[in-house]
Amino acid sequence: MKPIVSIIMGSTSDMPVMGKAAQLLDEFEIPFEMNALSAHRTPAQVEEFATGAADRGIKVIIAAAGMAAALPGVIAANTTLPVIGVPIASTLEGMDALLSIVQMPPGIPVATVGINGGYNAALLAVEMLALGDEATAARLVEFKKSLAGKIVKANAELAEVKYRFKTN
Amino acid sequence: MKPIVSIIMGSTSDMPVMGKAAQLLDEFEIPFEMNALSAHRTPAQVEEFATGAADRGIKVIIAAAGMAAALPGVIAANTTLPVIGVPIASTLEGMDALLSIVQMPPGIPVATVGINGGYNAALLAVEMLALGDEATAARLVEFKKSLAGKIVKANAELAEVKYRFKTN
Amino acid sequence: MKPIVSIIMGSTSDMPVMGKAAQLLDEFEIPFEMNALSAHRTPAQVEEFATGAADRGIKVIIAAAGMAAALPGVIAANTTLPVIGVPIASTLEGMDALLSIVQMPPGIPVATVGINGGYNAALLAVEMLALGDEATAARLVEFKKSLAGKIVKANAELAEVKYRFKTN
Amino acid sequence: MKPIVSIIMGSTSDMPVMGKAAQLLDEFEIPFEMNALSAHRTPAQVEEFATGAADRGIKVIIAAAGMAAALPGVIAANTTLPVIGVPIASTLEGMDALLSIVQMPPGIPVATVGINGGYNAALLAVEMLALGDEATAARLVEFKKSLAGKIVKANAELAEVKYRFKTN
Amino acid sequence: MKPIVSIIMGSTSDMPVMGKAAQLLDEFEIPFEMNALSAHRTPAQVEEFATGAADRGIKVIIAAAGMAAALPGVIAANTTLPVIGVPIASTLEGMDALLSIVQMPPGIPVATVGINGGYNAALLAVEMLALGDEATAARLVEFKKSLAGKIVKANAELAEVKYRFKTN
Amino acid sequence: MKPIVSIIMGSTSDMPVMGKAAQLLDEFEIPFEMNALSAHRTPAQVEEFATGAADRGIKVIIAAAGMAAALPGVIAANTTLPVIGVPIASTLEGMDALLSIVQMPPGIPVATVGINGGYNAALLAVEMLALGDEATAARLVEFKKSLAGKIVKANAELAEVKYRFKTN
Amino acid sequence: MKPIVSIIMGSTSDMPVMGKAAQLLDEFEIPFEMNALSAHRTPAQVEEFATGAADRGIKVIIAAAGMAAALPGVIAANTTLPVIGVPIASTLEGMDALLSIVQMPPGIPVATVGINGGYNAALLAVEMLALGDEATAARLVEFKKSLAGKIVKANAELAEVKYRFKTN
Amino acid sequence: MKPIVSIIMGSTSDMPVMGKAAQLLDEFEIPFEMNALSAHRTPAQVEEFATGAADRGIKVIIAAAGMAAALPGVIAANTTLPVIGVPIASTLEGMDALLSIVQMPPGIPVATVGINGGYNAALLAVEMLALGDEATAARLVEFKKSLAGKIVKANAELAEVKYRFKTN
Repeated sequence: MKPIVSIIMGSTSDMPVMGKAAQLLDEFEIPFEMNALSAHRTPAQVEEFATGAADRGIKVIIAAAGMAAALPGVIAANTTLPVIGVPIASTLEGMDALLSIVQMPPGIPVATVGINGGYNAALLAVEMLALGDEATAARLVEFKKSLAGKIVKANAELAEVKYRFKTN
Repeated sequence: MKPIVSIIMGSTSDMPVMGKAAQLLDEFEIPFEMNALSAHRTPAQVEEFATGAADRGIKVIIAAAGMAAALPGVIAANTTLPVIGVPIASTLEGMDALLSIVQMPPGIPVATVGINGGYNAALLAVEMLALGDEATAARLVEFKKSLAGKIVKANAELAEVKYRFKTN
Repeated sequence: MKPIVSIIMGSTSDMPVMGKAAQLLDEFEIPFEMNALSAHRTPAQVEEFATGAADRGIKVIIAAAGMAAALPGVIAANTTLPVIGVPIASTLEGMDALLSIVQMPPGIPVATVGINGGYNAALLAVEMLALGDEATAARLVEFKKSLAGKIVKANAELAEVKYRFKTN
Repeated sequence: MKPIVSIIMGSTSDMPVMGKAAQLLDEFEIPFEMNALSAHRTPAQVEEFATGAADRGIKVIIAAAGMAAALPGVIAANTTLPVIGVPIASTLEGMDALLSIVQMPPGIPVATVGINGGYNAALLAVEMLALGDEATAARLVEFKKSLAGKIVKANAELAEVKYRFKTN
Repeated sequence: MKPIVSIIMGSTSDMPVMGKAAQLLDEFEIPFEMNALSAHRTPAQVEEFATGAADRGIKVIIAAAGMAAALPGVIAANTTLPVIGVPIASTLEGMDALLSIVQMPPGIPVATVGINGGYNAALLAVEMLALGDEATAARLVEFKKSLAGKIVKANAELAEVKYRFKTN
Repeated sequence: MKPIVSIIMGSTSDMPVMGKAAQLLDEFEIPFEMNALSAHRTPAQVEEFATGAADRGIKVIIAAAGMAAALPGVIAANTTLPVIGVPIASTLEGMDALLSIVQMPPGIPVATVGINGGYNAALLAVEMLALGDEATAARLVEFKKSLAGKIVKANAELAEVKYRFKTN
Repeated sequence: MKPIVSIIMGSTSDMPVMGKAAQLLDEFEIPFEMNALSAHRTPAQVEEFATGAADRGIKVIIAAAGMAAALPGVIAANTTLPVIGVPIASTLEGMDALLSIVQMPPGIPVATVGINGGYNAALLAVEMLALGDEATAARLVEFKKSLAGKIVKANAELAEVKYRFKTN
Repeated sequence: MKPIVSIIMGSTSDMPVMGKAAQLLDEFEIPFEMNALSAHRTPAQVEEFATGAADRGIKVIIAAAGMAAALPGVIAANTTLPVIGVPIASTLEGMDALLSIVQMPPGIPVATVGINGGYNAALLAVEMLALGDEATAARLVEFKKSLAGKIVKANAELAEVKYRFKTN
C-alpha cells in the first residue's frame, strides 16, 4: 500500500506534535509516510523530495517547522501538491514560525494551521483526500459528529459541580 | 429558581478561571447555570442556546474561550442579551483569544474582560443585573467598599517590613 | 428628560469615533449626555462625576480613551454602574489603549469593546438597558434583524460582478 | 455548469482582495460562486450555507474575514469540506484576523493563507481540486513554470541599472 | 526623620520587585516610606496621598503596578512631584503594564523604568535627589564606580574557563 | 546664563518631536542647550559630553533616539545625572526605540517617557528641577491647573453638538 | 573585473532599498553583481546560484526578501559563504520578514541587518572584505570618520534655532 | 597564538548560550578570547576594547547582550571590524534584545543572529574568516556536509515508529 500523505518534520523533537497527525491518519486508514528533512540542513533532499512526491503517488504533504520555518514554503515551491504547514513553537511562542509559514508570496500558497497544530494538519489532509474518496468522506462525517462528544462529557462534569445558586 | 446568568465554556479545563465567576455569582445570590458549548464543535447547539436564552429567562451570558475564540461573538450574533467574553490564555499568552473576542464588527458587541478574567466577568454581570434589582445594587455597594480590604491588609504587612531608613 | 447613558471622552478629537455612539443612542431614543473628562488632566472631576453618576440617574457609562487609557478604569473604580471602555487608536494602532483598558485587576471590571468601537459601545449600553425596558428590547430585536441588510446589499453588488466561470 | 468553489466574504469592501481569487479561478476555468455572508450578522444563513454546500456540489470553500474573523471557523464547524481562510487587514495590520482564523481548536482546521492572501487562497483551492482532475493538474504545472517569469523580467530590468563597479 | 521618597505598590506580591527599591534607598541612607494603594481599589486614598505628598515632605514617588497599570499615571495626575513608574510583569510578560504606564498623554509624564525594574526606579530617585544634595551625589559617584565590579568578577570567572584555542 | 538642561538628539529630523521639549523649557524659563550626538556615529563625543555634563552645570539630560536607540542608555552609563529618554517612532511604530530605551539593566536607569513624548520629557525635567527651585515649583502648580483647560474647551465644544436625545 | 559581492532580491520593487547597497559598494569600488531570484518562484536557480557562487569568485552574498522571507536562509543552506539578510517591510511593518530571516536554526547562520537595511548590508559586506584587503580597510577607516559629519551638520542647524532661554 | 575572534558578554549568566560559540570556535581551531564587558557598566572599557581590537589582531567580534542590548552596537560604533550581535532572551522572550541589536542606524551595521544564537554567531565568524583562510574554508565545507547527519539520525528514529498505515 503506497503512502498518499507525506509527513515531514525537521527533527524527532517535533514528534509530540506530529505524532498526533500520524495517529489521526492511522485512524482514517490513510496510508502515509513520515520523514525528516530540513530546508536548511538538507536543501537538495528537500528539492528532490518535493519535485518527486507527486510521481510517487503522494497527494498531500504536511510539513512542520519552527523558528525561521522555511520548510513548508520551500516544499511548496517545488511541487503543485497542496502543502500544509505546521508552525512549531520553540521560540517567541511560535509567532516566528507562524509568520514564516503563513506569509507566503503570491503564487506559492501554504495551507497553514495553528501553532503546534499537527492534529488539525492531518484532519485538513483528510478533508482534501475526501474530495475524491467516498469512504474517507463518510468517515469524516462520522468524525464530525463525534466532536460534540467532548462537549457532552464536559457538560456531564459541569453538572456535578455544586453551588448554592447554580440551577442546572 | 430559574437561572438569570448563563456561564458557557468550551471545556472543563476552563474551570480554574470560570469557577471564580460561579463563586462570585453564588456570593451575590444570583441564580445561574453553567454549561459547555463550542462554536466549532457544537455549532447547532450554540445557535439553539443563544436564540432561546432570553425566552428561558437568562439576562446575561458569560462566554469563555481560548485561541480562535469565536464562541462569545457567535453567541452575541444570535441574541440581543448582553454577552460578556472571557479570553482564556492557552497559546500566545491569550493574545489570540483577546483579539478574537474583542475586535467585533459593528452591530454585534461583546463586553470583553481581561485575559482569564472570569471573576471580573461575573462582577460585570452583577453590575448589569443591579440596574434593575435594588438588593443586588446594595450588595454591590458593600462589595465595592470591601475592595479596599486587600490594600489594608497589604499595608499591615508592609508596616512589618523593617529597613534602617524606612519611616512608616 | 434626564440622561441615562453618559458618554465620556478626553477630547473632541475622539468625536469621529464617539459620535457614532451618540448617533446610535439617538436612534434608540435613549436620553444621554456627552462630556469631556480626563483621568490625568481633571482627576478630581472624574472622581466627582463617577461617584455621583448613579444618583443623577445614569445607568451606563461609556468612556473612551487612547494611549495609557486610564479613564474607563478610574471611573469604574468610583462607581458600581457598568462602565464600557472604548480604546481609541492614536499610537501603536490602539494596542496600548486596548491593553490599558481591558486588563483590569479583579474587582473592577471594564466592559471593553474593539479598538475605535464607539458604535458597539453604544449598542452594548442599549443591550444592558433593554434588560429592564421592554420598548428598548423590542427595538433591539428589530435592529438585530436589520443587520442582515448589509449582507443582502453586498450580495446584490456581488451578483453584478461578472467572470466567465462565475455561476451565481 | 455548477460551481465547485464558493468564495464567501463579509462585505464588498473585501473585493480588492477577493477579486484576485475570482480572477485566478477564472483563469483555471474553475466554476465558482461568490457570496456575502457574516458569522455575526447572518449566522443562520452561514450555517445553512455551510451544511448544504457539499450537497450542492461545492468542493472547496474560501472565506475571507477581518478583525475577530469568525467566519472561516464557523463555516468549517458546519461542513467536512476543506475551508480556506483569508485574513483581511483592517485593524492591527490584520494580526487580529490572522490569529482569529488560524488558531483553530483540534478537530476543525482552517487552511489559512497570508494576510490579504486572496490570490493564494484561490491557488490553494486549485491545488486541492487538481488532486482529482488531470486537466487542472496540467494547468497547475504550466502555471508553476510561469512563476519564474516575474524573476526573468526583474533580471532584465536589473541588467539595465548601471553602476561603475557593477559587473553583470 | 521624615521620608522623602514614597514607594507605592498595589499588593505585597510586588515585594520581590519593590523590596530591591527599598534596599537601595536604605543603602543610600534615603529616608523612605512604603505603602500599598490601588488606583482601582482605593481611588480616594490615592488622590489624598498624591495631593498631600509634597506637603508632607515627599520629593519623589515610586509607583509599581501590573496589568492595566493606572496607578503611576493617576498619582502623577494629582501631584507636581516626579513620579517613577515600575511596570510589574504578571500577564503578557508585563507588556500591558509597560504600555499602560509609559504612554502618558501630554502634560502628565511618568518616568518609566524597565519591566520589574524596582531597583532602577530607586536609583533614578536617588539621581533626582542628588541634584540638591551633595552627600547623595558623592555616594552616587562611588556607586557608579562599583558597577564595574560585576564585570571584573565575570572576567575572573571567564578566565577560569579553559578551551584548547582560548587564549586569554 | 548657563544651561541646566541639555537636549540631545541624533538628527534634526527629530525636531518636530524635540522642539516641543525646547518650547516647554522656554515657557518655564529654564536655560537649556540643544545638541546633536549619536551613540553610534560619534561615540567619543557622547562619552565626553556625558562625563562632563555635571561639571558644566547641567542638571538633567533629555536624550531622544529612534530604532536601536542606544543614546539615552549610553549617556546614562557615563553620568550620575538623571537621563530622560524619548523613543522616536521611525520604524515598527517606535516599539523598537521604546524597548531599546526602557529595558535598561540594573544600575543604569533611564527615565523613559512615551513614544515621541518630547513634551513630557521636558515637563519631567521641570519636575525634577522644581525639587530644588521654588519659583519653578510654583510655575508647575500653575501649569498643572491649566491642564484642565483643554477639557473645559472640549466640553464647550461638545455642548454645541446637538442630538434629539442628548440632554446636556 | 569579476564581482565579489552578489546582491540578490526578489523583485525590482526592492530597488529603493537595495539600490542603496549597490551605491555603497560602488563608492567602495567593490565589484558586484545584482540579480533577482526567489526561493519560492525559482528554487532551482537559487540552489544553482548558491552552490556555485564561491567557485565564481563571490565572497559575500546579500539577499533581500519580504514576508515569509526564506531566500537568505535557503541561500545560506547551499553555500559556506557569509550571507547577509535584509528584511524588506511590506506587511506587518517587516516584522514577518525580520523573524523569517534572523531566527535560523543552528548550523546555518544569516547575518541579519535591520528592516529595509540595504545600506547597512553593503557596509557589513565591506567590513568582511576589508579583513583581507588593506585598501578597503583604509577606505573603511575614512568612511567611519565621515559618519560624524551628519552630526556636525545637525549641530550647525540646531545652533540656528533660537529660543529665549536656549543658551548654545 | 594570538586570538582572532573576541567573544564579549555582559555576565557569566550568558555562558550557557555563549559557551556554544566558544566550543564551535575550538572545533574549528580558531584562536579566540572571551571577556566580559558592558556598554552600561563599563563604557570606557568598551570603547578602549573596540578601538584597539583591530590593532591587537582581532578580526571578528561576537557580542552578546540582553534587554536594552546596546553592547554590539556600541562596539560597532568604535571599530571597523565586523561585529556579530547575539540577542539574549531574559525578558519579553528576547524581543527587546533582538530589536535593540538589529535595528541599527545607517552606517553602523551589526550582523545579528537569532535569539540565543551563540552557536550560529561563531559559525558566522568562521565563515568570515574562511574568506581569507583556505584551511578554515575546507573545514567549513566538511562541517556543512555533516549538518545532514542530524536529519539522517532523525530519519532512523522515525523509521522505528510504527503505525498500522505508516508505510516507510
